[in-house]
Amino acid sequence: MNEHPAPHPRPDAPAVKVALLGCGVVGSQVARLLHEQADDLTARVGARVELVGVAVRRLGLTRDVELPEDLFTTDAHALVTREDVDVVVELIGGIEPARSLILAALEHGASVVSANKALLAEDGSTLFEAAERAHRDLYYEAAVAGAIPILRPLRESLAGDQVTRVLGIVNGTTNFVLDRMDSSGAGFDEALQEAQDLGYAEADPTADVEGFDAAAKAAILASLAFHTRVTAADVHREGIAEVTASDVASAAEMGCVVKLLAICAVQDGPDGPSVSARVHPAMIPRSHPLASVREAYNAVFVESEAAGQLMFYGPGAGGSPTASAVMGDLVTVARNRLSDVRGAGESSYADLPVLPMGSTETRYHVQIDVDDKAGVLAAVAQAFAEHGVSIQTVRQEGRGDDAQLVVVSHRASDADLAATVETLRGMANVRDVSSVMRVEGEAE
Amino acid sequence: MNEHPAPHPRPDAPAVKVALLGCGVVGSQVARLLHEQADDLTARVGARVELVGVAVRRLGLTRDVELPEDLFTTDAHALVTREDVDVVVELIGGIEPARSLILAALEHGASVVSANKALLAEDGSTLFEAAERAHRDLYYEAAVAGAIPILRPLRESLAGDQVTRVLGIVNGTTNFVLDRMDSSGAGFDEALQEAQDLGYAEADPTADVEGFDAAAKAAILASLAFHTRVTAADVHREGIAEVTASDVASAAEMGCVVKLLAICAVQDGPDGPSVSARVHPAMIPRSHPLASVREAYNAVFVESEAAGQLMFYGPGAGGSPTASAVMGDLVTVARNRLSDVRGAGESSYADLPVLPMGSTETRYHVQIDVDDKAGVLAAVAQAFAEHGVSIQTVRQEGRGDDAQLVVVSHRASDADLAATVETLRGMANVRDVSSVMRVEGEAE
Repeated sequence: MNEHPAPHPRPDAPAVKVALLGCGVVGSQVARLLHEQADDLTARVGARVELVGVAVRRLGLTRDVELPEDLFTTDAHALVTREDVDVVVELIGGIEPARSLILAALEHGASVVSANKALLAEDGSTLFEAAERAHRDLYYEAAVAGAIPILRPLRESLAGDQVTRVLGIVNGTTNFVLDRMDSSGAGFDEALQEAQDLGYAEADPTADVEGFDAAAKAAILASLAFHTRVTAADVHREGIAEVTASDVASAAEMGCVVKLLAICAVQDGPDGPSVSARVHPAMIPRSHPLASVREAYNAVFVESEAAGQLMFYGPGAGGSPTASAVMGDLVTVARNRLSDVRGAGESSYADLPVLPMGSTETRYHVQIDVDDKAGVLAAVAQAFAEHGVSIQTVRQEGRGDDAQLVVVSHRASDADLAATVETLRGMANVRDVSSVMRVEGEAE
Repeated sequence: MNEHPAPHPRPDAPAVKVALLGCGVVGSQVARLLHEQADDLTARVGARVELVGVAVRRLGLTRDVELPEDLFTTDAHALVTREDVDVVVELIGGIEPARSLILAALEHGASVVSANKALLAEDGSTLFEAAERAHRDLYYEAAVAGAIPILRPLRESLAGDQVTRVLGIVNGTTNFVLDRMDSSGAGFDEALQEAQDLGYAEADPTADVEGFDAAAKAAILASLAFHTRVTAADVHREGIAEVTASDVASAAEMGCVVKLLAICAVQDGPDGPSVSARVHPAMIPRSHPLASVREAYNAVFVESEAAGQLMFYGPGAGGSPTASAVMGDLVTVARNRLSDVRGAGESSYADLPVLPMGSTETRYHVQIDVDDKAGVLAAVAQAFAEHGVSIQTVRQEGRGDDAQLVVVSHRASDADLAATVETLRGMANVRDVSSVMRVEGEAE
């Protein structure tokens, strides 16, 4: 047997009592792990971790995990305010009643582990301040990119570094759809149907496809990376419903792949640094580590001053992977409870201004259908120049009496790029601006 | 300005005083970051972080960072035992005097941050026990895979999960060499020369090429992943000097790439679970996330029961990336000092037996030059069967009066596979077993 003194368990330590809100796909896996790994948890935490109650909407349902019936209750508020509850694990999602329950739990002395990205992105500050007042932890690794440890590395491992940019594939549904379009040439509708058939997309896919889910995660990532309060409302958001098979083919011709990216960056300006957060489809080079993220996997690519380029990759959703992230938080929060300390909390000390999308710098890939006449290319180039947008490459293909120009710009403000496209659309020899997409992931 | 109460800094908190051992490539970057990010560190730690001394071998040298001359000393022992030093950052490497200095620092009440993989892999337990006795932290994120946050995720983020396997590319030099061999068809010597010319390999590349560096990291990873004491001596080690251009080409034909992998796994057996740790070149499928790790980058691929497959990617060496990892540890350790707590320490409660290499299960890719005669394939197949090794695929290519057989086995014990190769070498119609390489990275 172990001849060395193990730091844990302490035989005199009381059990850490856990209340679970929600017993669905994730909650049932958390309950399963609490049971199956009880001995390991005891060794790692330094005390037994005991599930003392599960709040559900309806009693008597069949669940994915077997639990004693008397653990279940429909009175979530009574559960989270119980005197003996040390940690509340919130897995019900949405804004209310989740917010009120978390606040009540903190006020009554419980620490909280949550996977609620929507609530954290909309009103994280209310929760963080309540946790600070209560001297309790609020951990939420599972809210972004499922099983992938990304929030803790941002908050702790990179705490002595300066993060400059975060590029994330943080929505598995849209990555699955775009990956299918890339690998099979399918159109958006067909690929979405396949995702739905395989269970990667919901019947109403709006939250994923329109980028709402990714935008919430972008807000959380930007807040942590830049020590600045960024909410979902601050995030510029475009979904993937407009991405066509032709866009994907055009990206492939450029050696690129189309991904829905959550991009958070610090940008220096005359008035000092500011941050931006946005979610939109973008072309990235196939050589970029994010380009090889296939199917419904997630990955977060982090650029920092000292570390350089890091990437964190893994499953971004699913009951068991998400439960892994919840359990990691639970172990830390339980350990902190036993020592009566808080982990590294949120901070917004940097308090940087959030740039509007128009001021954010990016690059455009623009496909323009034009009349195949002398002087058209010059006129198009002039439109870019007028708005101060520098062109990196132009490719021209004649097709009978019309031609297609594919222009890739250098970095410019999104407003100048948008104004250029507007000017192009009004030009006499321009038949159509058939595609506009941002290009990301290249060295700054 | 920030209208919300920031948790930090506390105006009444004393400074956290840091002593640095070593001011070379990494140490000078740590000193630079301590200076340049002083305000951010104060906000993140909750108190000023002050560099109070730097121990070096010789005074008066020009360094990569400008520091007041009176910070330098050649008396490292006096520095680490100073009453006012809160944290010692050990960056001198090697076993002694690093071990004695770390032990002295802990005994005198300092917490320690170290990047010393050799020492941790050889005698980590002595250090962990000293830290435990002193109620101080010993953190060492920088010891494995440079800037990549991997130890903290293993120790904390996955603390509520069960890690089953870790596959790591943890040595940048060998990855650069193998990547060049793969992309250019170069032989080992030529690729190594290129690595040396570019500064990716040292003049004496033994520690990297022969796998000593990776083996130390494998021991650290296995210890953390499986809560079991694994030392460098427990790690089976083979380097890349025997990898030929033909091996790399043969891997390519199979849709694979050759990587030097550090592999740590839990294996169930009749007497319960046991662990294995090994470093050797292996073929992995090009579709595996590790296959796309190019040049001198590192990546660690983690498989766990609940999370599934995760990968952590980034620069595995270099002054500034390694300093990022050191600084992340420093922030946590400093925070813990202010609260007078320890972070999650090491644990070896699982205390699993370490399997010898012969009992480890793996797969072999074997190239056999044989006489092109009837019955040879049957005889070769019989040799595998005799040793209980099941064949997955055989490819045969005739070349005049001889032929080449390429056999890929199913999983079997390394001893049975080695015995099979031994038998093949003694067979009448076998001219040569020209290449033997393990195959990894496929689903179990």
